[in-house]
Amino acid sequence: MGNIDDRIAKLGITLPDAQSPVANYVPSVRTGNLIYLSGLGPANRPDGSVPNGKLGQDLNTEQGYEAARLVGVNMLARIKEAVGGDFNKVKRVVKLLSMVNSTADFTDHPQVANGCSDLMTEVFGDNGKHARSAVGMANLPGNIPVEIEVIIEVSD
Amino acid sequence: MGNIDDRIAKLGITLPDAQSPVANYVPSVRTGNLIYLSGLGPANRPDGSVPNGKLGQDLNTEQGYEAARLVGVNMLARIKEAVGGDFNKVKRVVKLLSMVNSTADFTDHPQVANGCSDLMTEVFGDNGKHARSAVGMANLPGNIPVEIEVIIEVSD
Amino acid sequence: MGNIDDRIAKLGITLPDAQSPVANYVPSVRTGNLIYLSGLGPANRPDGSVPNGKLGQDLNTEQGYEAARLVGVNMLARIKEAVGGDFNKVKRVVKLLSMVNSTADFTDHPQVANGCSDLMTEVFGDNGKHARSAVGMANLPGNIPVEIEVIIEVSD
Repeated sequence: MGNIDDRIAKLGITLPDAQSPVANYVPSVRTGNLIYLSGLGPANRPDGSVPNGKLGQDLNTEQGYEAARLVGVNMLARIKEAVGGDFNKVKRVVKLLSMVNSTADFTDHPQVANGCSDLMTEVFGDNGKHARSAVGMANLPGNIPVEIEVIIEVSD
Repeated sequence: MGNIDDRIAKLGITLPDAQSPVANYVPSVRTGNLIYLSGLGPANRPDGSVPNGKLGQDLNTEQGYEAARLVGVNMLARIKEAVGGDFNKVKRVVKLLSMVNSTADFTDHPQVANGCSDLMTEVFGDNGKHARSAVGMANLPGNIPVEIEVIIEVSD
Repeated sequence: MGNIDDRIAKLGITLPDAQSPVANYVPSVRTGNLIYLSGLGPANRPDGSVPNGKLGQDLNTEQGYEAARLVGVNMLARIKEAVGGDFNKVKRVVKLLSMVNSTADFTDHPQVANGCSDLMTEVFGDNGKHARSAVGMANLPGNIPVEIEVIIEVSD
């Protein structure tokens, strides 16, 4: 597969520092060979801005795709932290629940969710191909456009 | 338990061909003895039509129940594919997340979700009884009425 | 850690009787060392009343926090039942999906979800710290304000 860190760099992505939750939960929990990550919103763009708002009202599908890709950037940072910095321990991206902040009429959730799914595959190859649901939420914390939770399988 | 394929046939159900996603995700991922299936919408009715729309607006609870049962038909097809065609490998239907396309006022999500839960039990007996959540979404891909994701446990 | 039952009593909490679902699903399913609990709503308050309604419309964030804490009370009752009455078998609260009944404008889902997350930590200490998503739903069964599903890890 080549080196995952190199692959991320070649995609022009700088991983953000992983921030810790400010409440009584944690970024990830490992049980057996599975790691459950807490739901993630978009990382900042390189210029420090970050997408915000509701699909079907504030953002179009293309902008939603970009937001989901930025969730993927946060996800890579969190995954790296969860495996102690060694991406080679990631055996499989198992499952994504891609939750899109949607009006009652917006129906292109899969096209938005692809932003994160594509990045996982660009970075991890076939091991990045996951089971997935992509669905519309009434709203999300801080009015972020997309929140995604992920389960990954790690080697021992 | 008797033969699962026979039981499905006696229910008058013909399993659809399992269609592959057209994006960077897969129908199911196995990790250990668990299989995570991607979220599923309703299968076509025998006449080729398929339920569409929002509960509390376009469809009533009874129509939602039918839609959830048709999701179950798709689920049976996907499960069969995931276990290489041998339903006897299904040890347990572990968990359903039943997501109903709902207006802000619709509150009968469990009665809708029962359409799939009932079918799982009719087909798999006690092994089909699962943990479940049934909740209301702002919308779903393509305005489908119900999307359900499932985790199943398989024997080695 | 001290005795979990004592800790619950010191918090002034009386666990409700765990009620069985009236449909074709079950309160919890164990697979390996994981137990998946069905989605839970709030327990009754000591006076028999129970919070109901939508955040951003019927209830404010503080009232939502109380409702999520009451979901946690139900969760403790269900967990106890699932481990045969012995809380010492709970190794870790792995993952919460905290689903808040929200208007299209409500965005304080984490502050609501903390009601349950705080209780899990008060009762189980560091073993109660979980991965989590906190998100907004179009509606929930019976118009309850919060529904939470949880995965716990148990020792053999």
